[in-house]
Amino acid sequence: MDFYEVIRTRRSVRKFKADDMPEEVLKRVLDAARIAQSGSNRQPWRYIIIRDKARMKEMLPVCGDQSFVAEAPVLIVACGTNLNFNRGGYMGDFSMLVDVSISFDHLTLAARAEGLGTCWIGSFNNDGVKKYLEIPNDVQVVALTPLGYPADSGAFSENTNRKSLEEIVCYEKYE
Amino acid sequence: MDFYEVIRTRRSVRKFKADDMPEEVLKRVLDAARIAQSGSNRQPWRYIIIRDKARMKEMLPVCGDQSFVAEAPVLIVACGTNLNFNRGGYMGDFSMLVDVSISFDHLTLAARAEGLGTCWIGSFNNDGVKKYLEIPNDVQVVALTPLGYPADSGAFSENTNRKSLEEIVCYEKYE
Repeated sequence: MDFYEVIRTRRSVRKFKADDMPEEVLKRVLDAARIAQSGSNRQPWRYIIIRDKARMKEMLPVCGDQSFVAEAPVLIVACGTNLNFNRGGYMGDFSMLVDVSISFDHLTLAARAEGLGTCWIGSFNNDGVKKYLEIPNDVQVVALTPLGYPADSGAFSENTNRKSLEEIVCYEKYE
Repeated sequence: MDFYEVIRTRRSVRKFKADDMPEEVLKRVLDAARIAQSGSNRQPWRYIIIRDKARMKEMLPVCGDQSFVAEAPVLIVACGTNLNFNRGGYMGDFSMLVDVSISFDHLTLAARAEGLGTCWIGSFNNDGVKKYLEIPNDVQVVALTPLGYPADSGAFSENTNRKSLEEIVCYEKYE
C-alpha cells in the first residue's frame, strides 16, 4: 500500500472481527516494529503477544476496563527498558519512551497496511500489567493495542479532525 | 512509495546536498506529522522550521556541536507541550513524549518517501535550545532533525543491524 495512504487512513479501531490473521501477516507487522530507528540503535523495546482469550480478559481491570482490549484475536503489549540516556538533558529513564513510541508507531502503521486495526492504549496501570505479565522492575509498559480485522467496513476512513498546519508550524522561533 | 519500502530503507542521513526542496514537498512531510495519532487526539506537538543558515549554526553549541545539524537546507525542531495525562500511571508530564514521537516518526518516514534524509537528534540541550528559540516553560524540545537530499546516492540502503524478532518478541508473559 502507498505510504501516504497508510498515513492518511490509519484510524483507531475498537470493534473487531473474530477472524484470526495468518502468521506471516503478524510477522510482517512485528518486523516493521523491529526495524525501527532508536537512539544509538539501542532498540530498548520488547513486545509481548497475547492470544489466550482468558488472559486478555483477566487484564481488563489493569487496562481501564476497556472491553475492546480483549476483543481482537491478538493483544500486543509494548515494553521499554529504562534507558538513562537523558535525551535533551531532561528525559532520564524516560528516554526509552521516545524509542518505543517510534517502534510501536511503525507497528500500528504496518497493521493498517495489512488491513488490520489497532488502538493505541494509554489508559492502563503500569504496575498492574507488569505484575500480571511478570515484567521486570527496570522495564515499563509504554502502550498496548488489540490487533485484528475491523468489524466495520468503513473503519479506515481519512482522519479529518486535526489542527491545521498553520496551528502547529512556526518559523525560526517558537510562536 | 510502498509503505514497507519506506520502513525498510529509512536511514539516518548526516551528509546533505545544498539543494533546497520545493515548498510542496516540505508541506507533505509536515502534513504527515500533522495527521498523526495522539492520546485523546490532543496533538501536543509544535514544529519550528529553521531555514536561516546563521541561526542553524548558532544552535550548534546546544545541539552537541554536531556540525551536520546545520548542513541541510532545513532544520526541524519538534516540541511538545507538557501533558499531565499520566499514561500508565507513571509518565506524568512526559506523556507528551509518546505523542510527539509518533508525529515526528511520521515526519521522518514521509521524508524518506520524498527522497529526503533525516537524522533524529536526541543529543541536545533542552534549556539551551528553548532559550535560543524562545520556547515557553511548559513546552519541551523532544527531538531535532536536519532535512535535505542525501549527498550519498546509497543513503537509503536497507537496515540490517537490528536484533532478531526472537530477541524482541515473547508470548503470553515477559520472557
